[in-house]
Amino acid sequence: MISFEREVRFQDVDAAGLLFFPEFLSYAHEAMEQLFASLEGGYVRLITERKVGLPAVRIQSVFHAPVRYGDRLSIETRVLALGNRSMKLGYLFRRQDGVLAAELEHTVVTTDLNLLRSCEMPADVRRIAETHLDPDA
Amino acid sequence: MISFEREVRFQDVDAAGLLFFPEFLSYAHEAMEQLFASLEGGYVRLITERKVGLPAVRIQSVFHAPVRYGDRLSIETRVLALGNRSMKLGYLFRRQDGVLAAELEHTVVTTDLNLLRSCEMPADVRRIAETHLDPDA
Amino acid sequence: MISFEREVRFQDVDAAGLLFFPEFLSYAHEAMEQLFASLEGGYVRLITERKVGLPAVRIQSVFHAPVRYGDRLSIETRVLALGNRSMKLGYLFRRQDGVLAAELEHTVVTTDLNLLRSCEMPADVRRIAETHLDPDA
Amino acid sequence: MISFEREVRFQDVDAAGLLFFPEFLSYAHEAMEQLFASLEGGYVRLITERKVGLPAVRIQSVFHAPVRYGDRLSIETRVLALGNRSMKLGYLFRRQDGVLAAELEHTVVTTDLNLLRSCEMPADVRRIAETHLDPDA
Repeated sequence: MISFEREVRFQDVDAAGLLFFPEFLSYAHEAMEQLFASLEGGYVRLITERKVGLPAVRIQSVFHAPVRYGDRLSIETRVLALGNRSMKLGYLFRRQDGVLAAELEHTVVTTDLNLLRSCEMPADVRRIAETHLDPDA
Repeated sequence: MISFEREVRFQDVDAAGLLFFPEFLSYAHEAMEQLFASLEGGYVRLITERKVGLPAVRIQSVFHAPVRYGDRLSIETRVLALGNRSMKLGYLFRRQDGVLAAELEHTVVTTDLNLLRSCEMPADVRRIAETHLDPDA
Repeated sequence: MISFEREVRFQDVDAAGLLFFPEFLSYAHEAMEQLFASLEGGYVRLITERKVGLPAVRIQSVFHAPVRYGDRLSIETRVLALGNRSMKLGYLFRRQDGVLAAELEHTVVTTDLNLLRSCEMPADVRRIAETHLDPDA
Repeated sequence: MISFEREVRFQDVDAAGLLFFPEFLSYAHEAMEQLFASLEGGYVRLITERKVGLPAVRIQSVFHAPVRYGDRLSIETRVLALGNRSMKLGYLFRRQDGVLAAELEHTVVTTDLNLLRSCEMPADVRRIAETHLDPDA
């Protein structure tokens, strides 16, 4: 599990004054990049040079409590399941007051970005996923 | 059911060259605003003057096919279920070539934006939801 | 001159309840895409297949009046100056009540996206720019 | 002067693979929030409780060099001029290789967000502005 801190920024809220709900997914993507930051060249090189991406194939999210400008979210990221070419990531979004604001499950498939077809999960990606595998969370 | 056309814009794609997946949720929100456009003053007045919002409490989405800059999505929007204070919206995202790119289920709760508590669904909101209710879709 | 209508969306405002000022530039880019929509394959093909882009090299903007969620902007787009490899676009943003909300000047350079170097302006791009050239506006 | 580090994220680039130019302004706003972070309650409380905002009234920007996904920008922020109700902020955006990617001048006016009228600059805002005033930069 890794924990990633993310402040809700001025432009992240909507006309109702709440964090616009798609932003939870953007924050999750940032947390996933953190998870894979220890790859050589990081997630950036995975995408831009190795041309392997992790597009989402499935999302499930429950939103429990409102989040506003200035809130600081702590995002706990785990790997809930690990397949040959896919993994399911789990994220818990906690506000600075400890309230669980949202939960997200995010299934991604290792994908050859040139062919846009699924590909074998690179060994270094798998190693990181295994390190953070926590199926009972 | 309503159908809403949305072009994928220059800034909507990510460094992998694909529609950034949280954008599907943004597009869905735009489609929901279209669904409620016939309210007096539209969805805008619901939010800004009547202070009633429809925050998401649950999201489920499956992504089937990649979407790129320049693709034109046709977004079919239905109401899949209607409760006292909540409704489940369903969206189908089709590319211009007919391919189903994504499906989304989006449960929202009518919420008093001053109190940030659920509230009775306003009668005019309910009438529109009933018009588009299609539980077997 | 072309005129492009753009509604301010739910997610375009900031925590102060106003259109987040960088969005004016995003809207301008959308207006520029409209200006070049009559290219064969549109602006999309210019970018994705012909690999010619129009990155900004200079921006000047004055903001006169606030813009909020639900406002509808009419964006008038002109070409103010036309060089060998560059052009200066001018945008006027008017609210639905006629108030001039913002003015923007936007200089772009025709750029080979493979080399990231300026390139000759393609003839069809130039023809459209000439059609909308209005240096006295 | 303060310096603020900002990584270009996966979703910040456009279909040409470059940092979408309005994002420079978003990054500048983040840098400005950093500049005023030492206010009691920070910039957040200035906006949400004190109801004083700093909307942009003028922007001038020059873009020198491309910025891509994975680049890390160092954003130097100064106050270039300080008036009764306005200030001009200056930002220099440097890539991790030292290249100056962009320069931005950003004039803001202290504004009563309830009335949407300019107001006296709060004393604590002015003190921070004075600390970072560097008219010769």
